[in-house]
Amino acid sequence: MHTAQDLYPSRVGQQEKIINRKDPVVYGDQQSESPWSLSPSQLKQFDEDGFLVLPNYLPSLVDSIKNEAQVLKKKLAGRDERVLEPDSGELRSLFALHRHSEFLADVSRDARILTPVEQILASQAYVMQSRLNIKPAFKGKSFAWHSDFETWHVEDGMPRMRAVTAWIMLTENTPYNGPLYVVPGSHKKFVSCEGTTAQDNHKTSLRQQKAGVPKPESLEAMLDDKGIQGIYGPPGTLVLHECNILHGSPDNLSPWPRSIAMFVYNSVKNKVQEPFGGIKPRPEYLSDPDMTPLKKSTKLI
Amino acid sequence: MHTAQDLYPSRVGQQEKIINRKDPVVYGDQQSESPWSLSPSQLKQFDEDGFLVLPNYLPSLVDSIKNEAQVLKKKLAGRDERVLEPDSGELRSLFALHRHSEFLADVSRDARILTPVEQILASQAYVMQSRLNIKPAFKGKSFAWHSDFETWHVEDGMPRMRAVTAWIMLTENTPYNGPLYVVPGSHKKFVSCEGTTAQDNHKTSLRQQKAGVPKPESLEAMLDDKGIQGIYGPPGTLVLHECNILHGSPDNLSPWPRSIAMFVYNSVKNKVQEPFGGIKPRPEYLSDPDMTPLKKSTKLI
Repeated sequence: MHTAQDLYPSRVGQQEKIINRKDPVVYGDQQSESPWSLSPSQLKQFDEDGFLVLPNYLPSLVDSIKNEAQVLKKKLAGRDERVLEPDSGELRSLFALHRHSEFLADVSRDARILTPVEQILASQAYVMQSRLNIKPAFKGKSFAWHSDFETWHVEDGMPRMRAVTAWIMLTENTPYNGPLYVVPGSHKKFVSCEGTTAQDNHKTSLRQQKAGVPKPESLEAMLDDKGIQGIYGPPGTLVLHECNILHGSPDNLSPWPRSIAMFVYNSVKNKVQEPFGGIKPRPEYLSDPDMTPLKKSTKLI
Repeated sequence: MHTAQDLYPSRVGQQEKIINRKDPVVYGDQQSESPWSLSPSQLKQFDEDGFLVLPNYLPSLVDSIKNEAQVLKKKLAGRDERVLEPDSGELRSLFALHRHSEFLADVSRDARILTPVEQILASQAYVMQSRLNIKPAFKGKSFAWHSDFETWHVEDGMPRMRAVTAWIMLTENTPYNGPLYVVPGSHKKFVSCEGTTAQDNHKTSLRQQKAGVPKPESLEAMLDDKGIQGIYGPPGTLVLHECNILHGSPDNLSPWPRSIAMFVYNSVKNKVQEPFGGIKPRPEYLSDPDMTPLKKSTKLI
């Protein structure tokens, strides 16, 4: 049982409804002298929109990450960390990069990423989850609209909204290769979804998510004058993405894969508990139990 | 058996290959004094790219077409002219608009549409096919890459490339509601596809096309420096679309349907024969046997 109150009940058998966010978006006073810290206007934009795009931010890491991904793909053959496309069976995602690769663990600690993350969270952080998304050319299927936090809360026991996802574009992200769509501002609300969660839901949801997907009416209610926004950029672009922003992506019809490497940073002050959905915790490759605070590294700079 | 030679063999059991177009794109000398004719530069663009967008061209027709579509939806209940979405079972397409509605037959003859069509074809034309595509909000699924001509040639017996599709946007077409993607210039080649065609292929292909879909390698080979282009515009925008241009569209993840009304104009000099794929002809709602030349109308202007 939980000691903490469930501030964001979802999939607990009630009717779907939209409730207010009960946590800050940007924590603390955010002053920072680091060359890699975000400016006040960038922090303001992240606070308002729920995401921030830093074009062409880490171009020198792209080839090394791609090469390491090839190594990992083989190393993890036959393991659950590899998730396949629902129709074609091609590789869709590869999880726990930071657990299986020293180099990718270094990337996750890179001061250029970790500085803005800690600035937003006003605390140290650890990598709760990391993954490579491939979105293969022609065969990459859509991701339904969802809030990551909703899943992490219900299925992993993340109590509060105090986590940031940082993802690096490994190929150009264009309007045509199944880009990420976000609803700017949606991170300030929470869609408490209908239904309940099956044990082992993750065994199917990572291929095609069905539980925790808001209804059309809820999505529509979240849209303000910024509507839906696509996130595009050249390889090496870094995107900071608030844990609760609604996002999804269409099929990739193009001949260009849309590949990204993604690290989920949870605040060490946001200790993961038992899943709020009453299920058993998900495997460690989806929610890392090692909450040791990351130390910023300049090794790759 | 055919009297005409098959200039564009496809799905005849051979390996996929790309061959050259053997027909003009813009026929005749194209001079026209009509207020609705295309300019030389517009014709040049159509010739080069294979499509032309006329933004906000017929705004006054949009509401009337939408209202008439509602009437037709009921009138055609239970008939094959209604095609449903592969997953959700929502209405995806409605065929033979010009056969079931006097008003939509008037639209098909509208001088603002028919003048540029006849100019491109350098002949009179008839409506070979017409349809409403709904692309419903959230549930509209993708259309795979294909050339319409390939289907019309193999399954309907259209001998040459001398047809133009004109479609009217009934809702705003945006990057987010499953817009049409085209490969500019692809109409100058022809992808002779693998496989053969099953009898009654149209009973499944209109929901999800599998035969006549070029391989990834072929699509890639067709891309020039213009890459892939999305077609966007406000309601009332008219798009002229060469019969052989490669096009497709992603799923609609947005809360906005992407609805269009579409008329396929075949030249009366391009008389449809027996299907080149060796199958029995498709139903009349897909390929109208009435080749009476249309008379331009100014009734709705």
